[in-house]
Amino acid sequence: MAWDFETEPDFQAQLDWADTFVRDEVEPLDLVWPHQQFVPLEGARRAAVDPLKQRVREHGLWATHLGPELGGQGYGQLKLALLNEILGRSSWAPIVFGCQAPDTGNAEIIAHYGTEAQKQQYLQPLLDGELFSCYSMTEPHAGADPTLFRTRAERDGDDWVLNGRKFFSSNARTASFLIVMAVTNPGVSPYQGMSMFLVPADTPGIQIERNIGLAGEPLNDGSHALIRYDNVRVPAEALLGGEGQAFVIAQTRLGGGRIHHAMRTIGLAQKAVDMMCERALSRETAGSRLSDKQFVQGYIADSYAQLKQFRLLVLHTAWEIDKYNDYKKVRKDIAAVKVVMPTVLHDIAWRAMQVHGALGTTNEMPFFTMIHGAGVMGLADGPTEVHKMTVAKQVLRNYRPSDDDWPTEWIPRRLDAARAKYAEYLDNKAGNL
Amino acid sequence: MAWDFETEPDFQAQLDWADTFVRDEVEPLDLVWPHQQFVPLEGARRAAVDPLKQRVREHGLWATHLGPELGGQGYGQLKLALLNEILGRSSWAPIVFGCQAPDTGNAEIIAHYGTEAQKQQYLQPLLDGELFSCYSMTEPHAGADPTLFRTRAERDGDDWVLNGRKFFSSNARTASFLIVMAVTNPGVSPYQGMSMFLVPADTPGIQIERNIGLAGEPLNDGSHALIRYDNVRVPAEALLGGEGQAFVIAQTRLGGGRIHHAMRTIGLAQKAVDMMCERALSRETAGSRLSDKQFVQGYIADSYAQLKQFRLLVLHTAWEIDKYNDYKKVRKDIAAVKVVMPTVLHDIAWRAMQVHGALGTTNEMPFFTMIHGAGVMGLADGPTEVHKMTVAKQVLRNYRPSDDDWPTEWIPRRLDAARAKYAEYLDNKAGNL
Amino acid sequence: MAWDFETEPDFQAQLDWADTFVRDEVEPLDLVWPHQQFVPLEGARRAAVDPLKQRVREHGLWATHLGPELGGQGYGQLKLALLNEILGRSSWAPIVFGCQAPDTGNAEIIAHYGTEAQKQQYLQPLLDGELFSCYSMTEPHAGADPTLFRTRAERDGDDWVLNGRKFFSSNARTASFLIVMAVTNPGVSPYQGMSMFLVPADTPGIQIERNIGLAGEPLNDGSHALIRYDNVRVPAEALLGGEGQAFVIAQTRLGGGRIHHAMRTIGLAQKAVDMMCERALSRETAGSRLSDKQFVQGYIADSYAQLKQFRLLVLHTAWEIDKYNDYKKVRKDIAAVKVVMPTVLHDIAWRAMQVHGALGTTNEMPFFTMIHGAGVMGLADGPTEVHKMTVAKQVLRNYRPSDDDWPTEWIPRRLDAARAKYAEYLDNKAGNL
Amino acid sequence: MAWDFETEPDFQAQLDWADTFVRDEVEPLDLVWPHQQFVPLEGARRAAVDPLKQRVREHGLWATHLGPELGGQGYGQLKLALLNEILGRSSWAPIVFGCQAPDTGNAEIIAHYGTEAQKQQYLQPLLDGELFSCYSMTEPHAGADPTLFRTRAERDGDDWVLNGRKFFSSNARTASFLIVMAVTNPGVSPYQGMSMFLVPADTPGIQIERNIGLAGEPLNDGSHALIRYDNVRVPAEALLGGEGQAFVIAQTRLGGGRIHHAMRTIGLAQKAVDMMCERALSRETAGSRLSDKQFVQGYIADSYAQLKQFRLLVLHTAWEIDKYNDYKKVRKDIAAVKVVMPTVLHDIAWRAMQVHGALGTTNEMPFFTMIHGAGVMGLADGPTEVHKMTVAKQVLRNYRPSDDDWPTEWIPRRLDAARAKYAEYLDNKAGNL
Repeated sequence: MAWDFETEPDFQAQLDWADTFVRDEVEPLDLVWPHQQFVPLEGARRAAVDPLKQRVREHGLWATHLGPELGGQGYGQLKLALLNEILGRSSWAPIVFGCQAPDTGNAEIIAHYGTEAQKQQYLQPLLDGELFSCYSMTEPHAGADPTLFRTRAERDGDDWVLNGRKFFSSNARTASFLIVMAVTNPGVSPYQGMSMFLVPADTPGIQIERNIGLAGEPLNDGSHALIRYDNVRVPAEALLGGEGQAFVIAQTRLGGGRIHHAMRTIGLAQKAVDMMCERALSRETAGSRLSDKQFVQGYIADSYAQLKQFRLLVLHTAWEIDKYNDYKKVRKDIAAVKVVMPTVLHDIAWRAMQVHGALGTTNEMPFFTMIHGAGVMGLADGPTEVHKMTVAKQVLRNYRPSDDDWPTEWIPRRLDAARAKYAEYLDNKAGNL
Repeated sequence: MAWDFETEPDFQAQLDWADTFVRDEVEPLDLVWPHQQFVPLEGARRAAVDPLKQRVREHGLWATHLGPELGGQGYGQLKLALLNEILGRSSWAPIVFGCQAPDTGNAEIIAHYGTEAQKQQYLQPLLDGELFSCYSMTEPHAGADPTLFRTRAERDGDDWVLNGRKFFSSNARTASFLIVMAVTNPGVSPYQGMSMFLVPADTPGIQIERNIGLAGEPLNDGSHALIRYDNVRVPAEALLGGEGQAFVIAQTRLGGGRIHHAMRTIGLAQKAVDMMCERALSRETAGSRLSDKQFVQGYIADSYAQLKQFRLLVLHTAWEIDKYNDYKKVRKDIAAVKVVMPTVLHDIAWRAMQVHGALGTTNEMPFFTMIHGAGVMGLADGPTEVHKMTVAKQVLRNYRPSDDDWPTEWIPRRLDAARAKYAEYLDNKAGNL
Repeated sequence: MAWDFETEPDFQAQLDWADTFVRDEVEPLDLVWPHQQFVPLEGARRAAVDPLKQRVREHGLWATHLGPELGGQGYGQLKLALLNEILGRSSWAPIVFGCQAPDTGNAEIIAHYGTEAQKQQYLQPLLDGELFSCYSMTEPHAGADPTLFRTRAERDGDDWVLNGRKFFSSNARTASFLIVMAVTNPGVSPYQGMSMFLVPADTPGIQIERNIGLAGEPLNDGSHALIRYDNVRVPAEALLGGEGQAFVIAQTRLGGGRIHHAMRTIGLAQKAVDMMCERALSRETAGSRLSDKQFVQGYIADSYAQLKQFRLLVLHTAWEIDKYNDYKKVRKDIAAVKVVMPTVLHDIAWRAMQVHGALGTTNEMPFFTMIHGAGVMGLADGPTEVHKMTVAKQVLRNYRPSDDDWPTEWIPRRLDAARAKYAEYLDNKAGNL
Repeated sequence: MAWDFETEPDFQAQLDWADTFVRDEVEPLDLVWPHQQFVPLEGARRAAVDPLKQRVREHGLWATHLGPELGGQGYGQLKLALLNEILGRSSWAPIVFGCQAPDTGNAEIIAHYGTEAQKQQYLQPLLDGELFSCYSMTEPHAGADPTLFRTRAERDGDDWVLNGRKFFSSNARTASFLIVMAVTNPGVSPYQGMSMFLVPADTPGIQIERNIGLAGEPLNDGSHALIRYDNVRVPAEALLGGEGQAFVIAQTRLGGGRIHHAMRTIGLAQKAVDMMCERALSRETAGSRLSDKQFVQGYIADSYAQLKQFRLLVLHTAWEIDKYNDYKKVRKDIAAVKVVMPTVLHDIAWRAMQVHGALGTTNEMPFFTMIHGAGVMGLADGPTEVHKMTVAKQVLRNYRPSDDDWPTEWIPRRLDAARAKYAEYLDNKAGNL
């Protein structure tokens, strides 16, 4: 045990391979098949992507998030973090490496709580990337507060019948099944009264009202669905993990996911730094290169410092997860990572855009995709404001109030105490210069 | 070799001892003898401080910056960093632990470049904290640009005669000797034409024109001297390390010093966080505790994240120094530390002050001392702006310009390349959903 | 009525006179008699200052805040704002111009609520600057929330007897009387249960526990007192304006005071801009003047824009006060001024300090006094956080919630409405390019 | 002459009409015909838009930027500013009100420098909105530095022949003519060696290489062209305003344009504030409305203060243009407006997005269009960095260096002067408390 900031050579070799592989083979997919990561592989896409997946498997980097019980290698969060940093350069990379959200979390849920039949039908194909899934939780009126959810699941004979509306149900239109959070007992606290259901996508009554897109995408043709569940009937075994367990299950989903997301963000932000630096060296204006101008130097220095610090925070948090294996002990730092992440990407991408001049604002450079991504990061999975509150509350657990009106460090009181402590010397006026 | 963010238990035990010792024994000195750290120990101060130093020695933590060649333990920078974090709580602590700047750097210079006589006269007492020293480098008109220095040392027989003015020569009024940087050959580049001299403080011709203080101190009664050197005559052996070597020597001084300073800053900022949290829990206003208010929660969360990230940056940089033992390889990160440091302390101390209300702005709480310290940190040892340029230049060394008007990542070109790469699949239109 | 950003020539001439007068005659007082503004004038100080006051009177600029009923000229807030901008350069200027807080507000209170005897004894000397007063309101445990105040005034025969502790009672040690806020009826809401008392400073039982200073001042020798009221007995007529009226009276004190404070801040910040610019032109480093370096240019540009915008906000608010003569209509903008003010001074003073290098951090330049002043501004008279809440609440009064889950500007709904509106044209597909 | 922040009632009535008209009639055009403002009006669009233009004409608000010599009303910049604030809500509004850039500037150029034939062919239709124009100035390699432009125009008999490439030539694909800046004399300074040409869009040799779009638009289908001029031959009279006059002409284009742009930005930012406030009142989470949470209150307060201050800055600058009619006197403030503008829109739109949660990031709300617009504003018409330099240089014109090493405000010197000034009083020690 001793401070060490280095990766084992063997795993570093794997990372180096992954880095080259993502740059050469995977990033081009983002350009030829944009926005198609969650469309089941067919035809040309299958022909192109399957061999890439195979190479990832051969290098032992397929679905690295899986524990040994699901056939994974149990790398631990720190190594996953380092790998995800590389995957962050490309939106196809998580698919090619078998670790795309939300399927990773959904697979965990089925692995833990699914019946054998459910596992057979969904788990392996999901792990294989042969089908996709949707996590249908938040509601249009409720935002980040699950206690306000209204979607109901009512028992009817052996079945459950779901009614309600869900918002931002990503990939719903290409998913094979949805995991839906619904109120099963409105008479108790939401923390006890909500349950999770596995609902096949072809169940009658699932209506996609809108296919909401991210900013810049065509209206009603995006991958974030507003869904109406209209008397959607599922059998008893659709209930995952027992009535009233939705909150418990939801939390198992979080695990290292935020860390992976953060490291992918770092990979993306590093790409922006790289572009900023290349541009600064390439451009001359008003008699000198951009790289010789203090404003640009300031952008580079600030970006470097911001990114390097954030990277160390994320890696440290990953290490804590591996060490403690206790969500409560790492909750503070996971929330801190979530708070800092959007700002880092925003600031760096914005500076990189600025250094590229007008070109930086166009659809021929990726900066606004990054900036928009930063905006999404500040809201998805809980808004920054909520995570700031979590950090503060966790930090405050280590403190207690002062005993009276004055702080412990109030100087008059501390001065009195100090004088009392060193009274014998202070009486000796001679030495008290 | 593998990522690890933990301290060896043995050294952690020493740190724990030091933490308690500083809080209980050393911090009170700040209150009873403020601003007297660099006054040679006498009378009551000696009686009180000598036993504390002895306890530090007994715990093996005296002058830990020294290498084995000077009787030190060779702990390395990372451990020193961790220790300095603790010392940062108290302005007397570096004295009690035998590692106060600028004496540490000056001792290094004498150890490397001094004659035996100089070592005998100055080195051991300096290491023992029995006398103090001054580093007299910058000049009133020149600020951060040493190439503009004008103070001259001219050869006269066997002697050197110094003339000129030096600014911000800290501790000059209590120092036993000064290390003075002077132009010995105005005909060549400043990088070759300047030399270092060891000048005893009682040499005739040294006139302290002003004893400049930090903001808040009484006029002309501070410890940062404006000195006039008026025909100050020193013997040949006062020249340290050969003519024209001032820049080389100056750089050896930097070494880990900035890292220690940064860790002490972290210790101080942590103290501000502690105070902010205690206050947030202690105060109730408008119907709830400060700790329940989002503005205050935001201050705490931002402070925690900012400080934790910076701490990891500093520790990583310390680790790099230990690993590479090559200033060039760590220069970038040392400069990044220097850039970030003042902002971290400023922001946290300001927020802590704000949470304390009017009391926070008074002389009964230490916040403005911290804020002022942050201002000094942004200027001493080179202004932030200069260090930002250093970071940028070092970062840019890893990049090269693009080959034509368009960046490497220009999407139209990358799209063409991607299509070419996957052309065989793209021809198969069927699969191109 | 039409937009105009210019001062009437006659008043501009008065301002020009005041500007020269403050620079030449008043600013030197800050240097020769610092911190003595609220010590009653005697001896040399009287001999020097009385003639200056006389010149101010002769130029019609004495106590310009007074309405005609108190012998003032009724200039209105906008002109006062412009004058205060000039006074902001000097801490003695408000004394010399007869408009120093808190005496201005206290005089208003006595003018409105005092007995004839009180007016005779205190009002005219206060207006003349012959004596000083203290506003003793906040309490050590209560900060910005007056509903928590505990100091009691109990009826005892014809007298009132005060008991309790007050914090940050500025100028208490040199004041002739204090205006004290106390609970007279603990059984009702604090808004009805607190009253104001005029208490002569020599009343038995007033104990100054501590003379708290601002940061940098010597301990227990400052002008912000912590006072214990120990059975302080005052006659019935000490009650100002009726039992339970403390909140009503407190609000009359605010009036234009914050606007004057803001304009004085602007004057001070402009001084910092002036110093920053002079320095930028005076210093050369690394081959060019500071004024040629982008970092410094950025500081100047940002400071200019920040200050100019804030100045217009303050002048606009002053104009609103004159126009509406209704605190409720201007409350939002007064709070906005209070929110922005500390940041403007902080940012500009900090940049100016940075441009001055190490000298900027010393006691030989005024930057930390300014920065500290900015800290005080963010807390005195209510912390920034509270005023932000006020701004938000006032802004929100002009809005109402949307009718359903979707915002009024939700694009799908607006698109439907737009298509309906222009349906006749949209049916004509030919033109719908 | 006296400070006044109000609009004349008559013009206010016109503004009120315009406000209602834009909200009810014009904003829907943004939804039904997005991105088609610069496509010549035909079919349904003409049928819908022509009557709107007619109503604007009837209300005297058509093409209000035109001076009387072009048939305009000569409203002056301040009134135009107020009108543009209203137009800023809608991207179709400038078209409907006949004041869309870049046609306004191009019309000015033709009005000043065009031949009668050019005026007849282009000017009136341009003013009428019947045809559109392109300003083809910047080049792919040159960004904000026109001295680097390489596009050449060479004399060949009576003709000029243009060769080169131009970047970001907005609306080129729908324009009837382009105004092209080209080097006519490479042997002299660019400020003397470049000229302007009016080039009909159907001139052979004009090749649009790419139709670059803004971020989010489909590749190669946007309105910002990369153009190759390949032996484009135009007659002698295509030269506008004399050889070598390109810089002079370019500057006449700027005039009030930036002010109008800034006020449109304010209108847009105000829309974001409106949305943020509505949402804050509409949403409940964790037990209270968003409007009751300090984080949201902070967003609202900061946005209000930022926008209000910027609005006053812009109006003040417009007033200065009207007053001085001298670009040199207003250059500083125009540049300051340009510097502040993007940040105001960015910050407010980002906060508004954040308050809308996940919905705010989608294509069903306009926030990222605004944020992207802010990015464009920080680069189009010169990057923020260049305008900061302009502000600083203009500010610095009012200052001169200090006379020696010390600033004018150096306290030791000022203290000496103050003591000298008041020496007679200071000798009287008695009064010097």
